Amino acid sequence: MSNCATKTFEEFKKLSKKERGDFFGSDSGKLLSVIFAQQFNTDFLRYIFKLAAVIREISITKRGRDHLRTLCSDRVAELFFRQSSTRTRNSFQVACLKLGMQIVLNGDEATESTAKGESELDMAHTLGIYSDLMILRHPEPGFVEEAAWHLAQTGEKIPVINAGSSQDQHPTQALLDAFTMFEHFQQYGGFAGKTITFVGDLRSRTVRSNVYLSRNFPGITFQFCAPENHQIEKDIISFLEKHEIKYRICNQFGRPEITCSDVIYMTRLQNDYDSDDPDRASRVIEGFVFGPTQLEWLRHDAIIMHPLPRRSELDVKCDKDPRIKIWRQTKNGLWIRMALLTIIFGQDNVLKNDVNFASMFIR
Amino acid sequence: MSNCATKTFEEFKKLSKKERGDFFGSDSGKLLSVIFAQQFNTDFLRYIFKLAAVIREISITKRGRDHLRTLCSDRVAELFFRQSSTRTRNSFQVACLKLGMQIVLNGDEATESTAKGESELDMAHTLGIYSDLMILRHPEPGFVEEAAWHLAQTGEKIPVINAGSSQDQHPTQALLDAFTMFEHFQQYGGFAGKTITFVGDLRSRTVRSNVYLSRNFPGITFQFCAPENHQIEKDIISFLEKHEIKYRICNQFGRPEITCSDVIYMTRLQNDYDSDDPDRASRVIEGFVFGPTQLEWLRHDAIIMHPLPRRSELDVKCDKDPRIKIWRQTKNGLWIRMALLTIIFGQDNVLKNDVNFASMFIR
Amino acid sequence: MSNCATKTFEEFKKLSKKERGDFFGSDSGKLLSVIFAQQFNTDFLRYIFKLAAVIREISITKRGRDHLRTLCSDRVAELFFRQSSTRTRNSFQVACLKLGMQIVLNGDEATESTAKGESELDMAHTLGIYSDLMILRHPEPGFVEEAAWHLAQTGEKIPVINAGSSQDQHPTQALLDAFTMFEHFQQYGGFAGKTITFVGDLRSRTVRSNVYLSRNFPGITFQFCAPENHQIEKDIISFLEKHEIKYRICNQFGRPEITCSDVIYMTRLQNDYDSDDPDRASRVIEGFVFGPTQLEWLRHDAIIMHPLPRRSELDVKCDKDPRIKIWRQTKNGLWIRMALLTIIFGQDNVLKNDVNFASMFIR
Repeated sequence: MSNCATKTFEEFKKLSKKERGDFFGSDSGKLLSVIFAQQFNTDFLRYIFKLAAVIREISITKRGRDHLRTLCSDRVAELFFRQSSTRTRNSFQVACLKLGMQIVLNGDEATESTAKGESELDMAHTLGIYSDLMILRHPEPGFVEEAAWHLAQTGEKIPVINAGSSQDQHPTQALLDAFTMFEHFQQYGGFAGKTITFVGDLRSRTVRSNVYLSRNFPGITFQFCAPENHQIEKDIISFLEKHEIKYRICNQFGRPEITCSDVIYMTRLQNDYDSDDPDRASRVIEGFVFGPTQLEWLRHDAIIMHPLPRRSELDVKCDKDPRIKIWRQTKNGLWIRMALLTIIFGQDNVLKNDVNFASMFIR
Repeated sequence: MSNCATKTFEEFKKLSKKERGDFFGSDSGKLLSVIFAQQFNTDFLRYIFKLAAVIREISITKRGRDHLRTLCSDRVAELFFRQSSTRTRNSFQVACLKLGMQIVLNGDEATESTAKGESELDMAHTLGIYSDLMILRHPEPGFVEEAAWHLAQTGEKIPVINAGSSQDQHPTQALLDAFTMFEHFQQYGGFAGKTITFVGDLRSRTVRSNVYLSRNFPGITFQFCAPENHQIEKDIISFLEKHEIKYRICNQFGRPEITCSDVIYMTRLQNDYDSDDPDRASRVIEGFVFGPTQLEWLRHDAIIMHPLPRRSELDVKCDKDPRIKIWRQTKNGLWIRMALLTIIFGQDNVLKNDVNFASMFIR
Repeated sequence: MSNCATKTFEEFKKLSKKERGDFFGSDSGKLLSVIFAQQFNTDFLRYIFKLAAVIREISITKRGRDHLRTLCSDRVAELFFRQSSTRTRNSFQVACLKLGMQIVLNGDEATESTAKGESELDMAHTLGIYSDLMILRHPEPGFVEEAAWHLAQTGEKIPVINAGSSQDQHPTQALLDAFTMFEHFQQYGGFAGKTITFVGDLRSRTVRSNVYLSRNFPGITFQFCAPENHQIEKDIISFLEKHEIKYRICNQFGRPEITCSDVIYMTRLQNDYDSDDPDRASRVIEGFVFGPTQLEWLRHDAIIMHPLPRRSELDVKCDKDPRIKIWRQTKNGLWIRMALLTIIFGQDNVLKNDVNFASMFIR
């Protein structure tokens, strides 16, 4: 890391993803910051999934919950959210609190010093100085990585977790999604040979980060169902081809696409900021929706996921069907983020000695 | 409860108040959720008042405060406030914190996923999933009850506390008001024979919930002082007549109404949302105010209450008079909410063994 | 204090600064509230600086941090911020949390009862009732002092800390600034004979509070560099003359002003509320800036400070120079506020027994 520490961020940016990933936390080493999904390898994923499952197990009893609260009881996290969030913010907050950490929330521009002319980097630096961890969501491309690099130069090397970075990455969402699929596929022989279908608006950072994780699951096939103007982007296609991952582009979402799927991952139209459209908050992409009709085509061993929030692209009428895993997926966001925090603060070792750890996920 | 669990909310809504109250927490059984004031019977009220008084007593010492913080130390509450609040929100937050709970705050629409088209029910479900309790204030009629019913169907049966529901109910305000009166009347033979006068804008959810509690205090008389357009509503009159509770309707508030009162409960004009009126935040109802003149007419054993916030309908010039109980009433909101939380999480049993419990409120 | 307790605030305001300071916490006695910088004498400053340094030392280990969290673990603070804030709010929040305290945040007018017509004093009273401490930032001249006086009249004498009061005072900023200078001057024989130069917009409450502390450091010289319309105000000049503190007024900021300085304290143009100017958030005062050119003139033993947020008046290009102390200064805000909280809650005695205390700051 020392060679990176002497560069400017402009120089750092020119390094390869691999080198930058190594700086923030290598595949095999200690994790400093969580910036993009490409940082994680298969061993790391299996390890964090196991940790998440153990934490869920421990949380059942009051004694277990009280134990978890001791793990990071000396730590304070600053949340710095420049974009609206419900699930990511709440699950990070609860994850911190359940590990005994404390939280300070920031991001409302109206009440902060950026209104006085402060730069976003000065703001991030300041929050980093007061705390042991920054959890950062930001609309500006590259800002989360720049802030993380900057805070890694300070004496105390403050970790940063990317909680959603422009249109590019949302690595913790990808982790919880992969955890949900992983647990489901435990019953069916693992990821190999499975088809994962993304439906709707595929330019989202959630879909992108999910695909970046996929190189860790050999033998899977992606199916991308979207109209042309919402299809998966070219850099993602290049990634898939470079890593020889099978994929199919479909401009429709009908019975054939559904029956061949093991996971159908629905997404919302990303038009929140089209301020000219008064109905923007209820729009869906016609033909790329899942309702009772589509449910009848779904295989008994397949599941439906959605990162939420949803509009009518996933009909609430389906919610009672056990193959709709959206609420389990939501709750997994809590367990996976708790697991991540224990790793960052080196408290995963305590959990590894837990009686449940050795027997979890035998396969 | 199992028979309710299989219904839709549309079916559930058609049940009687008694049946729905039994579902959320019966008069004599375990309390799941707090939705409306009619859930509480006399035994429950006496019990929670005693708990609140014991908690206040314990809180005097650091040792006591540190003990209280262990009671619910493994719990996280989500606050979901869609309407502005100072007292209710702050007292719930402090109540949780003083019992060792942690809190996540939600409700600012500008920074949340409802702006992306999420339904309020999905939002409530999500927050419920991350936490052990939801404290919910909402302007939409019936939404708090629907959310509570919905969350009772989830695997973990997340409790919901109504922190103000549309124009209909504010049950925890009613509990703290009744506690304040109860303690005052201890010196004067209890509620029987007492006259409680509500003054001002009587269409408020606070007044309504207060009246609903009254069936537990036989022998009281209500006096409703308001101009016709702000008088108590017909469904409340029906409730009083059904339960044979004495009441008087007065279209004025003068010396006769004051001298016959044991409690005068002042209220604010509920015009916060009349956005056409630039002076709406300072309006009062002429003739229905309490100031130095009215104070001279007040009996020495009577008290003045107000749920706050107040405008000039209760003149600050009166504040130093010991019969003005508004700050004691405010603080009682903290103790009663702490008591309620211990009941919901089954920690009241710990308090019942406290040395102060047996001797409290001997009558 | 008893004679003050019987007065109205109108009468209290007519007392001298000394008498009012004695009421809130005398120079030598117990500290109730922190309202203005003139409350502090030299002994108090030396003591709180030592406490802050000890807390910083203890915070290095997890064991130390866990110990600090027990000191005020039974306390809840209400933050009531009516003006935007990043550093002051965050450092107070983290300071509270690191001492085991809990926090409730208030001040967003849109979601609070002041929108319903509540007075600011009723609001402050309410928050005080629920908590053990109020930390208050307010734009209205004199309001912080009035609220503190009012809360001192209540049964429980709730302490108030001024976190920024109109254009008048910001005493905790002055404490952290003085702490930063004090530590620096330890290496160079203390404050006597040193020149402190304030640059930019000197009508700020931060500069004012800093000057008020200066009577505790005999032998210092102030240099005020600003254009005429932003120069230090006349009441401050009177204060300096009354206490026979040396000062110089300069209408420029060039090489002579820099080379004679031991501390250069840069400030931001205070035009945040000039809503007519679309570029207000980036404006600086021409000629009163510090960049690479000025850095060359700076003595090797001098330092640069800035209360932040900054605009371009302090160029980020200088940040890597070790004489730029802005981040150390920022972090000192945390330690000094933790020290202040331990004094208010009488927990400084615990720290005085710490092994580090006796050996700290030997001179």
